Amino acid sequence: MAVEAQAERDTTRIEAFSDGVFAIAITLLVLELKVPHMGDLPEPSSEALSAGLAHEWPAYFALVTSFLTVLIMWMHHHRVIRLIRRADVPLLFANGMLLLFVSVVAFPTALLAEYLGTPAAPAACAVYAGIFVGISTAFLVFVLAAFRKGVLLPDVSPASVASIRRNYLAGPPLYLAATIAAPFSPWLAMAICTGLWIFWAASTREC
Amino acid sequence: MAVEAQAERDTTRIEAFSDGVFAIAITLLVLELKVPHMGDLPEPSSEALSAGLAHEWPAYFALVTSFLTVLIMWMHHHRVIRLIRRADVPLLFANGMLLLFVSVVAFPTALLAEYLGTPAAPAACAVYAGIFVGISTAFLVFVLAAFRKGVLLPDVSPASVASIRRNYLAGPPLYLAATIAAPFSPWLAMAICTGLWIFWAASTREC
Amino acid sequence: MAVEAQAERDTTRIEAFSDGVFAIAITLLVLELKVPHMGDLPEPSSEALSAGLAHEWPAYFALVTSFLTVLIMWMHHHRVIRLIRRADVPLLFANGMLLLFVSVVAFPTALLAEYLGTPAAPAACAVYAGIFVGISTAFLVFVLAAFRKGVLLPDVSPASVASIRRNYLAGPPLYLAATIAAPFSPWLAMAICTGLWIFWAASTREC
Amino acid sequence: MAVEAQAERDTTRIEAFSDGVFAIAITLLVLELKVPHMGDLPEPSSEALSAGLAHEWPAYFALVTSFLTVLIMWMHHHRVIRLIRRADVPLLFANGMLLLFVSVVAFPTALLAEYLGTPAAPAACAVYAGIFVGISTAFLVFVLAAFRKGVLLPDVSPASVASIRRNYLAGPPLYLAATIAAPFSPWLAMAICTGLWIFWAASTREC
Repeated sequence: MAVEAQAERDTTRIEAFSDGVFAIAITLLVLELKVPHMGDLPEPSSEALSAGLAHEWPAYFALVTSFLTVLIMWMHHHRVIRLIRRADVPLLFANGMLLLFVSVVAFPTALLAEYLGTPAAPAACAVYAGIFVGISTAFLVFVLAAFRKGVLLPDVSPASVASIRRNYLAGPPLYLAATIAAPFSPWLAMAICTGLWIFWAASTREC
Repeated sequence: MAVEAQAERDTTRIEAFSDGVFAIAITLLVLELKVPHMGDLPEPSSEALSAGLAHEWPAYFALVTSFLTVLIMWMHHHRVIRLIRRADVPLLFANGMLLLFVSVVAFPTALLAEYLGTPAAPAACAVYAGIFVGISTAFLVFVLAAFRKGVLLPDVSPASVASIRRNYLAGPPLYLAATIAAPFSPWLAMAICTGLWIFWAASTREC
Repeated sequence: MAVEAQAERDTTRIEAFSDGVFAIAITLLVLELKVPHMGDLPEPSSEALSAGLAHEWPAYFALVTSFLTVLIMWMHHHRVIRLIRRADVPLLFANGMLLLFVSVVAFPTALLAEYLGTPAAPAACAVYAGIFVGISTAFLVFVLAAFRKGVLLPDVSPASVASIRRNYLAGPPLYLAATIAAPFSPWLAMAICTGLWIFWAASTREC
Repeated sequence: MAVEAQAERDTTRIEAFSDGVFAIAITLLVLELKVPHMGDLPEPSSEALSAGLAHEWPAYFALVTSFLTVLIMWMHHHRVIRLIRRADVPLLFANGMLLLFVSVVAFPTALLAEYLGTPAAPAACAVYAGIFVGISTAFLVFVLAAFRKGVLLPDVSPASVASIRRNYLAGPPLYLAATIAAPFSPWLAMAICTGLWIFWAASTREC
């Protein structure tokens, strides 16, 4: 009984710390939205401000894509943790690597915001998709570390486990394809990144 | 009994993650307050610094308005979650959309801080009120998703539910009116935004 | 019993949200530390970097003062919440005002960091102490709202309550004195601000 | 029984607050990664952006080193807190000093990011290692404060306690050696800093 309570407390604190990093990482994305500056105009007009804001569409696209991808990953992280009996050292390290990748998501997002509408879009999109190769690989490793015997709760049905693992197996190869495609077609790369979060959102049956 | 405990834990983690995003979103607002720089003066005087700080009044107004609106929304979010038995997928997505809108609140706040005292105030106020159309609509969708059968706790009184829903029905149309009014009268738009958080604060009977 | 459990959960969530704002507010202080830039030097030397870092002493002093003052206030906030049976609406609003003041602490800290070593120090110190008049008044109102009948736990000893209230009564008048003294002697103002957190730290008997 | 529950709640809130500061401190590191700006080029090319990103390698090295050092310290902080029966005033102050040091980790990291590839690397590395003398000393004081009689849980085995304390005794002298070595060999200093987090990661037996 005491052991059970201790184990419960264990996953609770990993949840709390991971939730903190996920929540901060997606909320920091707003700092990449820049207020348009019109320093050379003597009197900034509403028209100039509206044009400046419209010009920043890559920043809005980048923020929404990164926010929703990480938010949906958090929902599945949440579900995986609930199936775990206790957090052992391999799981803690897998989770730590995932948090490292999630915590830097604001950087490729800012890169995309700044360069998606420029001739440097291929490099920006390749870096963006490349970071998500890392994020999705880290998440897959975390899922595999969680679904080992002795870590998983004894009464979890194999079907429930299999569907989560299967859905996330698509992540690393497809993000890698996006990374490779980016130099030729940044838009194809972005379409793959967008398609992936829509797929994971749509395949969310329960949480 | 175990199912009950599991359900309890479910809403606990949604609360924790949402609390994190709400708390970070309102605390990041301070980053929009800029220390006045007097680079062209050889020796900055107390008088120049005081004048520089006084000149930033739109930033203080914008921060207080955004902080209190989101803080009061958090108090009601808190109360709604307490009436919920379990978080299903539609509720999680409604909550996710709400968090997306809440997380970007620092951006329209910074826009208002920079342009409220300039001829571009109409555009800045329209964007500010427009983002709050999104925030309040997302909150209303969250409330409606929470107050469905099977999600709500069985012993919640209909009157308690009805008053929360009714108070927040005012949000989207009034923020929309503020957005439409902003090009003609930025001050009317700001008065509506201020009036709304005062109304929600004043109508808070219990939490 | 169910009511008891509900009440427990209530203060838990206020604690969690308040902890979030306190933790973010003091961790954001690091963003006010600026890496010295030596743009006009062709090759930045270790000597120039060391001199640049030494020149930023007001920033280190400001960060440590603000961090410790808010950290110790969090410790007492923590202790007060533990004496509470349930959070009612007045307490929630008092706590909200406190969080608003705590969340902006990075701004006067940055002001102090930038201007303490300049002729504008009187204005910077007056604003810094003035914000802490607000923070300490909000904390006192929070303590008074918490120590009302029906909010406080029934078995709290009057002596325990009285010592916390008494210690924080010193805050608003002494910070006000620092604000008034700042135009004449910025150093006296800073000495009062430093003395106050040392006093609150030293008077912490249990937590 | 009620006393036990109260004690449990006590360490829970210290955990939550500390987790918040640790999580925010390592997630804020991403703000030190700067999007390369090519303001003088009329049309930024993918080649120029890639070169700009590659040029920022010290920033990536600094982020990964700081992130992993603090993450592993959090894992051990987590484990130490679990061995504690209650948090007394000395432990709270030791924890507060640790949080102060952890919260500023973004500053030496930014310093390293900016100056590791320049002639000012000796000063940057000395400051970086010097801050970690402070962090590791604060962690050691926290461990010693936690492992006192009356604070530690009664059923903790002396061997378990001894291994944690022994592993962290290496921190302050080795970081001090790195600080002293930095002016002569910044790379030796960085090798010591890297070696330390690898040692602490590798010596993590359970959590």
